[in-house]
Amino acid sequence: MTLALWLIVACGVLSVVYGVVTTRTLMAANAGSARMQEISSAVREGATAYLKRQYTTIAIVGVVILIAAWLLLGIYAAIGFLIGAVLSGAAGFIGMHVSVRANVRAAHAAQTSLAGGLDLAFKSGAVTGLLVAGLGLLGVTLYFIFLTGSGFAPTDRTVIDALVALGFGASLISIFARLGGGIFTKGADVGGDMVGKVEAGIPEDDPRNPATIADNVGDNVGDCAGMAADLFETYVVTIVATMVLAAIILPTELQLIGMVLPLAIGGVCVLTSIAGTYFVKLGASGNIMGALYKGVIATGVLSLIALLPVMWIMFGDMGLSITVGETIFTPWALYFCGVAGLVITGLIIWITEYYTGTGRRPVNSIAEASITGHGTNVIQGLAVSLEATALPALVIIAGIIVTYSLAGLFGIGVAVVTMLALAGMIVALDAFGPVTDNAGGIAEMAGLPDEVRKNTDALDAVGNTTKAVTKGYAIGSAGLGALVLFAAYTQDLDYFIRTATEGNFFFGVGEVSFSLADPYVVVGLLFGGLLPFLFSGMSMTAVGRAAQSVVVEVRRQFRENPGIMEGTTKPDYGRAVDMLTKAAIKEMIIPSLLPVLSPIVAFVVVLLIAGKAAAFAALGAMLLGVIVTGLFVAISMTAGGGAWDNAKKSFEDGFTDSTGQVHYKGSEAHKASVTGDTVGDPYKDTAGPAVNPMIKITNIIALLLLAVLH
Amino acid sequence: MTLALWLIVACGVLSVVYGVVTTRTLMAANAGSARMQEISSAVREGATAYLKRQYTTIAIVGVVILIAAWLLLGIYAAIGFLIGAVLSGAAGFIGMHVSVRANVRAAHAAQTSLAGGLDLAFKSGAVTGLLVAGLGLLGVTLYFIFLTGSGFAPTDRTVIDALVALGFGASLISIFARLGGGIFTKGADVGGDMVGKVEAGIPEDDPRNPATIADNVGDNVGDCAGMAADLFETYVVTIVATMVLAAIILPTELQLIGMVLPLAIGGVCVLTSIAGTYFVKLGASGNIMGALYKGVIATGVLSLIALLPVMWIMFGDMGLSITVGETIFTPWALYFCGVAGLVITGLIIWITEYYTGTGRRPVNSIAEASITGHGTNVIQGLAVSLEATALPALVIIAGIIVTYSLAGLFGIGVAVVTMLALAGMIVALDAFGPVTDNAGGIAEMAGLPDEVRKNTDALDAVGNTTKAVTKGYAIGSAGLGALVLFAAYTQDLDYFIRTATEGNFFFGVGEVSFSLADPYVVVGLLFGGLLPFLFSGMSMTAVGRAAQSVVVEVRRQFRENPGIMEGTTKPDYGRAVDMLTKAAIKEMIIPSLLPVLSPIVAFVVVLLIAGKAAAFAALGAMLLGVIVTGLFVAISMTAGGGAWDNAKKSFEDGFTDSTGQVHYKGSEAHKASVTGDTVGDPYKDTAGPAVNPMIKITNIIALLLLAVLH
Repeated sequence: MTLALWLIVACGVLSVVYGVVTTRTLMAANAGSARMQEISSAVREGATAYLKRQYTTIAIVGVVILIAAWLLLGIYAAIGFLIGAVLSGAAGFIGMHVSVRANVRAAHAAQTSLAGGLDLAFKSGAVTGLLVAGLGLLGVTLYFIFLTGSGFAPTDRTVIDALVALGFGASLISIFARLGGGIFTKGADVGGDMVGKVEAGIPEDDPRNPATIADNVGDNVGDCAGMAADLFETYVVTIVATMVLAAIILPTELQLIGMVLPLAIGGVCVLTSIAGTYFVKLGASGNIMGALYKGVIATGVLSLIALLPVMWIMFGDMGLSITVGETIFTPWALYFCGVAGLVITGLIIWITEYYTGTGRRPVNSIAEASITGHGTNVIQGLAVSLEATALPALVIIAGIIVTYSLAGLFGIGVAVVTMLALAGMIVALDAFGPVTDNAGGIAEMAGLPDEVRKNTDALDAVGNTTKAVTKGYAIGSAGLGALVLFAAYTQDLDYFIRTATEGNFFFGVGEVSFSLADPYVVVGLLFGGLLPFLFSGMSMTAVGRAAQSVVVEVRRQFRENPGIMEGTTKPDYGRAVDMLTKAAIKEMIIPSLLPVLSPIVAFVVVLLIAGKAAAFAALGAMLLGVIVTGLFVAISMTAGGGAWDNAKKSFEDGFTDSTGQVHYKGSEAHKASVTGDTVGDPYKDTAGPAVNPMIKITNIIALLLLAVLH
Repeated sequence: MTLALWLIVACGVLSVVYGVVTTRTLMAANAGSARMQEISSAVREGATAYLKRQYTTIAIVGVVILIAAWLLLGIYAAIGFLIGAVLSGAAGFIGMHVSVRANVRAAHAAQTSLAGGLDLAFKSGAVTGLLVAGLGLLGVTLYFIFLTGSGFAPTDRTVIDALVALGFGASLISIFARLGGGIFTKGADVGGDMVGKVEAGIPEDDPRNPATIADNVGDNVGDCAGMAADLFETYVVTIVATMVLAAIILPTELQLIGMVLPLAIGGVCVLTSIAGTYFVKLGASGNIMGALYKGVIATGVLSLIALLPVMWIMFGDMGLSITVGETIFTPWALYFCGVAGLVITGLIIWITEYYTGTGRRPVNSIAEASITGHGTNVIQGLAVSLEATALPALVIIAGIIVTYSLAGLFGIGVAVVTMLALAGMIVALDAFGPVTDNAGGIAEMAGLPDEVRKNTDALDAVGNTTKAVTKGYAIGSAGLGALVLFAAYTQDLDYFIRTATEGNFFFGVGEVSFSLADPYVVVGLLFGGLLPFLFSGMSMTAVGRAAQSVVVEVRRQFRENPGIMEGTTKPDYGRAVDMLTKAAIKEMIIPSLLPVLSPIVAFVVVLLIAGKAAAFAALGAMLLGVIVTGLFVAISMTAGGGAWDNAKKSFEDGFTDSTGQVHYKGSEAHKASVTGDTVGDPYKDTAGPAVNPMIKITNIIALLLLAVLH
């Protein structure tokens, strides 16, 4: 196993090397004219300033929690927390660092060809993607090697608690980064669009708009850094949860193998993801989504092949009979669970593309509804967003049934791990979005020819879909992994109750019923269910508030300085960036604490009313409640937002309605579609995606609560 | 018990008598000028034509199901189904019949005073309210008397199946009526507003708008008839579920008492509701909500007092020790459960008023957000709608904990029954809304002085809140009663499995686990969870489609007949009514069948994959899944929609923003608020409220499925 672990470390290192090498190639590309570089550096400065401030604030919360973790759970958990937090921050920071430099180069490359722009933007995304996977893998594997090397058995509680704490560190950073970044980016985007596009009638990213730099900064801090932190968290938590599960439920002789397996899958899929990036090439047809698909399919097929030797090496015999409770399965079955994970990923990509891609029924229906006005646009967008939850949920349901039938709970774990092992590739698809979005902004502001903007817009439309894909993928993995996360809790609880001695909190708790007929289970489900709603309500309010302040500021600049609209004086870009930085940091705190404190409050309240068994039951049910509603809330928001955005984009080349009439940019229908896009912005980039780390934090806090009470 | 039952019948008869007498008083009121009567009769004709067509369509589906019920479950179930269906339809039809006549009289009365308008509108609402409660009570009680008089023991399966089938009849009509009416009313409202208010800049209900009669028809068929059918269903299903629960879980000697108790509570609360209606009087302050509160508080306090003798008479001894499983409770505890039901109702009213009433933080925040544009208005409205779910959910959670601690499952049942026993009063509050809305329309179209419209608008703003109250109340009762509905299923299932003999479907199924650790339970939760999302997505699409066709039609009339806008020619009102009638009937079918077919499909699929026990577990979990997400989806939609509507109304008297500036009707901010209102329309009046009957149908189908398989 030691060799295997070091091989996994090698895979992690390789992905970092890929990141460094690719970044060098990117930096070597032409950074365009002085004007372009000037704009790009304004964006870079704003983004760096924001991130510095955000991390400083998070660090304050982080240090408090670090000390608490140390005192309550010991030094190893505290170190784990620190590793998770630092790596999560690093993944976001480095990704953004590359992204703010790639934007101007992609804009320059798009002057020559669509393929050139795609190549640069995708490479930048791939750096972020592989760093997310690579750093995640390295963090967990190295710390696991260190802990087991320090004399702890792999299944020792210290090891498990330390790994869970590592996940918690990642989750905590991720929710702050997702929310803070999301509020910043959408405050700028919504506010800027509302005054710029709708009121003043100037195009997006017009240099006359005082919010335009802030908007581009937002793409980086929200869609790039925030997203990277989120996926890092998802990746790490899933691997850790599956490792914990293996340690608890597998037969003793297979526990270590089972714990290393998720890491091995992660390692081999980093390799297939790197290989996959080389397949992304624009074909003669100029189909951008097709080019990206090539990369995804290559990674999928290679993973499908590579997983087989991994299983074989890990277990030694593909026909080995493994007994867990009443379930008996073989490594073959686990392999097919992995395949199921790949298939689920593919289906989620395909469904998301259907619901958010231009030219399909859902996006067209929103565009068509725009012709009758703002109201019908929003109604249809909401209808699409609600409807878009059904197919992904059915896929997840099927996934649970198939993988559980194949290999029980551990089978589900392997499927989720395999699904997330592709994170390198999937995040690459996503992180390519903000680069193209920025490239478009730079092209517009630098006054490059219209064809450039057309190229970047085409890339950006695909970016909307791929961004929705990642979010559906992250939250889908939470849905598929619901039972794994829940099992980590119930099995831990069971273990603590079984081994409790007198004086211990768990002594004499007796059997905890998670039956739906138990009122405290229903109470837990409802309480968990309310969290995603309340949380996203709070985040939407935060974006609304931030956007309103931007609108007020932009209107003020236009009013007090008429030279801006005439193009004779430059607007004060810095003020909007500053204002948003402060607003986003302030607004992110309270919603982020909701999932941290809710499990504790719920547990204590039920404990006081109805005793320990009821409190544990309610807390457990809460973990499922938050997934059951969170899954739908998150998918509806991310898919709906993507569809709204692309419905707006449909007008840019002229949208042909059902009567054959063509509606162009600037038409009333287009204005209505901008309203929908505005509404979709916080839906898809703030509230929706932040639900995923919120779910994870709730789950991890529950696990840590058990560890603390022990 | 026979005497008690006949006394309950007497209460039911009294409520019908109240309805007849009050209707006569209403009809005696002055019906206004010839022009007003002309408008009113156009609305009446449209509404009657729509309802006739709707009931004809439903009858076709109904007959098919009636025959199926007869064949599968026998004649008594078929008759029960018929009674439920017919009475549900009747409650809606009669309520609407009164409402379309009261509207013009309320408009006339509002010419003299606000108090006069309120009085007439509220009385009309009270007729509908007391018919809902009275007919529900009569239907269940008389059929129960008939069945037990026909030689069946009260707890005989035939009796239980027949009562459940009665609930099913009510539910089926109700979902069609809610959806069909909702699509009609909101198609007209949204479509009419978008062309009229936003594009043409003419006021709501302007006679030049070709959709204006359709809009007023919609208020009656949707908000009056549809709502009445919905609440009738909620009332009946809750009583029936609690009766079934009593028959199954109470000790043998208390079963009959327990079955009659819900009816007795219903009976006495019909009396307190009638008494309460006389307390609704506008005080010197002119506070409309205050006047309505007086009625609600009077009903609540009287019920609080009257429940005590009911318990005492039913059980004979308030200290009697009742043992159900491990729970022991007394009639005193049941009394306090009833009190809890009243308190929950009060809290839900109060919270809903907070979230939807003008002048409070949530509505003001939406109005304020309108100043920065359409987009921020919608974002803030969505934020409020999401946030508005938290407090009601917490109230329901507290309700479950308190009542279960007091008297176990049956205690929850008594609390929900008491909550719904106030339906007479609560529906009165709601049904008063469409009357005032119509009165305003008639005032506008008939060109009555502006003060009249001001009076009716003031009434209408309160109507928005009370409409949201009823919906929150209906869905809240579903949340509180979740365990009762679930217990009806699990206890039935348990009974069938226990008593199964060889050859029976239930033979050898063994124990069914409803543990959250079971994958089929999680699958069921997720599948149930997706239904409210998919269902409301479909209903929103339907409204969007209907509205778009209205927009196209109204634009056509304006274009082809310029005399309309000049006021020289009359628009063709009938076309819009006709078009919407066809559209609504067509669009209501498929979404309505979703909750009917889903439980069956889910059961069969899981049965084929994993066998009987898994299928029963998944089906059971589905029932809770549909409540867990449905509760939040419904509350967020109904509260959010109400808040949007009243944010728009805030501009009518001038909205003072945070900087002290006043924004009036016709301002850009007002236009943005109209967009929000438009979006909120299908949210609050179509998709949101229809979730409640949807949940009930899913539950009842599951119960009937068990009965059929037996």
